[in-house]
Amino acid sequence: MTLQKVLAHIDRDLDNATARLMELLRIPSISTDPAYEAPCAQAADWLVRDLQGLGFRAETRPTPGHPMVVAHADGPGPHLLFYGHYDVQPVDPVELWDNPPFEPRLEETAAGTVIRGRGTSDDKGQLMTFVEACRAWVAVNGRLPARVSLFFEGEEESGSPSLVPFMRDNADELRADIALICDTGMFGQNTPAIVTMLRGLLAEEVVISGPDKDLHSGMFGGLARNPIHVLCDMIAGLHGPDGRVSLPGFYDGVPELSAEIRAQWQNLDFDPEAFLGDVGLSQPAGETGRSPLEMIWSRPTCEVNGISGGYEGDGFKTVLPAKASAKISFRLVGTQDPDAIHKSFVDYVQSCLPADCHAEFPLGHGAPASQMSIANPAFEAARAALSDEWPQPAAYIGCGGSIPIAGHFKSILGMDAMLIGFGHDDDQIHSPNEKYDMESFHKGIRSWARILAALG
Amino acid sequence: MTLQKVLAHIDRDLDNATARLMELLRIPSISTDPAYEAPCAQAADWLVRDLQGLGFRAETRPTPGHPMVVAHADGPGPHLLFYGHYDVQPVDPVELWDNPPFEPRLEETAAGTVIRGRGTSDDKGQLMTFVEACRAWVAVNGRLPARVSLFFEGEEESGSPSLVPFMRDNADELRADIALICDTGMFGQNTPAIVTMLRGLLAEEVVISGPDKDLHSGMFGGLARNPIHVLCDMIAGLHGPDGRVSLPGFYDGVPELSAEIRAQWQNLDFDPEAFLGDVGLSQPAGETGRSPLEMIWSRPTCEVNGISGGYEGDGFKTVLPAKASAKISFRLVGTQDPDAIHKSFVDYVQSCLPADCHAEFPLGHGAPASQMSIANPAFEAARAALSDEWPQPAAYIGCGGSIPIAGHFKSILGMDAMLIGFGHDDDQIHSPNEKYDMESFHKGIRSWARILAALG
Repeated sequence: MTLQKVLAHIDRDLDNATARLMELLRIPSISTDPAYEAPCAQAADWLVRDLQGLGFRAETRPTPGHPMVVAHADGPGPHLLFYGHYDVQPVDPVELWDNPPFEPRLEETAAGTVIRGRGTSDDKGQLMTFVEACRAWVAVNGRLPARVSLFFEGEEESGSPSLVPFMRDNADELRADIALICDTGMFGQNTPAIVTMLRGLLAEEVVISGPDKDLHSGMFGGLARNPIHVLCDMIAGLHGPDGRVSLPGFYDGVPELSAEIRAQWQNLDFDPEAFLGDVGLSQPAGETGRSPLEMIWSRPTCEVNGISGGYEGDGFKTVLPAKASAKISFRLVGTQDPDAIHKSFVDYVQSCLPADCHAEFPLGHGAPASQMSIANPAFEAARAALSDEWPQPAAYIGCGGSIPIAGHFKSILGMDAMLIGFGHDDDQIHSPNEKYDMESFHKGIRSWARILAALG
Repeated sequence: MTLQKVLAHIDRDLDNATARLMELLRIPSISTDPAYEAPCAQAADWLVRDLQGLGFRAETRPTPGHPMVVAHADGPGPHLLFYGHYDVQPVDPVELWDNPPFEPRLEETAAGTVIRGRGTSDDKGQLMTFVEACRAWVAVNGRLPARVSLFFEGEEESGSPSLVPFMRDNADELRADIALICDTGMFGQNTPAIVTMLRGLLAEEVVISGPDKDLHSGMFGGLARNPIHVLCDMIAGLHGPDGRVSLPGFYDGVPELSAEIRAQWQNLDFDPEAFLGDVGLSQPAGETGRSPLEMIWSRPTCEVNGISGGYEGDGFKTVLPAKASAKISFRLVGTQDPDAIHKSFVDYVQSCLPADCHAEFPLGHGAPASQMSIANPAFEAARAALSDEWPQPAAYIGCGGSIPIAGHFKSILGMDAMLIGFGHDDDQIHSPNEKYDMESFHKGIRSWARILAALG
């Protein structure tokens, strides 16, 4: 009975919930760019004020980087810790946005109403689904059906440098019966999902230097070493003709799918042609002999995310540059060891360097993959609650992205994590024109209200 | 006798000549960047006013791009056409300059006084050596010892798109007995040089597209085609392990050195270790089995001058980009055909494209190499005049850079060109902290005064 009242309240309050989300979206909390330090703090403060209004004991906590938000509210049931992040990706190339990324707006599309703007799907819109579910419970019931803590970080899009130290320093405060994470997607438009398999991430940057200054390619071209050529040769050697990563030892700890999971995935309603077609592609480009779902969920990857060197402006400049650099990420699965792969990468790059060149590696931080245990009965309880809200029953799936926090909850705090989110593949997170479906926002709030009831 | 008075006047007037050059250097006439259109016009106007003050009939001439400067003065002897360019290279990375690039200043260095700033050596300082020689002749003698025309362009650093049409449209006005070009260097500190062999240039840009938008590398990595990988594979295939360019037909029309020239070059006082050591290198990186002077003067090259794709800012962004691009230049020798090589390059890139990728080629303009005939007696006359001014006799040399104007003077106007310049290898043209030796400026002016006398 109470749940029905809470759901009805959510429906009535949707316009207000949307307006609150818009406020948060207008704060340009780009964590990776030091120029946006103040807006990151502003987003954290906004959340603290909003949570205090719901009766949470909420505060920002300083870190060497952007602040954490930690909030607690008492309740009768088990202790749930909800995690989200208030920081967002950069917005370049900004000229490809149809409207300014931090002036969010509602748009009617063929697929329904969407909220358009940076952070709508990743992760402010998702984070607020849980906050709004709490708000509705408090409004209708006077209190939450469980003891709830909230934990929001502001560095998820910049490698989370403060996260592990903060979790270690505040382990007793953060430890709960289970963690809830809202930073993932649905499986298709009508099928909610709980992610039980997450790829890890090793982020590398390599800067290759040759001459000690930029040179004129007429005067020196053909004689002097060109670092761009060295970089491209190195990158070309990272993959074999079968699409496999060539680094020695890279596949150590990469498991094959169990027959059970392989069968489950084959039964999922996944259309690779449509998935690729949505982004202008027609052919899988990964490892020979692997299915598209394996490529994105259970196989490791190596992708160059950025490359830079020499003259990149309009027109032409006949320069032979002193340096060239690339940002390269490895998605990890199973028990692949980020440190071992970092070392293998560095050794490989060094082996590619001809005389007079040297390489620097300014990054090289990583997190291993995570696999959840669904033996915890909270998983089936949440799956049932989700299945009540959506047209199709909820599925246990894999996720190609890296959400290291799930592994940290296990390794540092000793608790399981449930990854439940309402994003869609066409949300264009990390790209121009990011959006979040109004249906995701609305039914996402309702889903959390149901899960709070089920776990409470 | 008159020549001695002219040389003495040059010595006395050096401070004023330097001040005039500084004025021209302060105008940021970067031709390749549309944002600098007004300063380019300003530099042209500055030259017209200065030449009018010397009695030249001088004016700017409009083109679809930056204006030409054309000036004429009568005189008794043969008709000489002097060419230079008033535009300069971009200044990025501007943070590597020790002082602002368009605030030139004199600096005392271990090797003597230098003028520091963008355009000092390439080509405003060089261009002004000839103008100052004319000024001294007019001041001492009341008129020039020869009929002199001046022809300055403002698009040399951006591919000279207006040059050939302008020369064709004004061929009768520009045709002279011989052309003089001051845009090259000395051979060593004490040996002046006349360049008789110039490499051509084919400038290419290639943009490779894959997905129709930037993608999240977690969601799509390992499945979707990454254009940076395609670009790097393509670039890695441009050279073979012997350093030769792999494009089919690339070496068609590439001559071997004559025994005579090879012998002359072997006798030149060239120290490859010092030449490379000046820029932080120790080993030649070009074609196996070729000498360093061959690599930079008489062998064709392929160099990537710029590469760009994905996230290039601070921090890390796990993007899988929609596009990646490179700027690539080919230095040409002998009778290599820029159009044929453009076609071979395009065919090669197309052959590298996997499914779902396509390539665009926004540039693809080029000029063939030039070889001067030293049978014209003006060459020996100028060589003698240069040898009188400098400690060592002048040498006939090759030049790795591309100065297409020399070929155009021959093909369009039917006249020989003498390339005489006073730059040095350490002038850092096209790089931060460009400089021109005060000795080059001073003795360059005196050299032209002598050559005017010798040819007049």
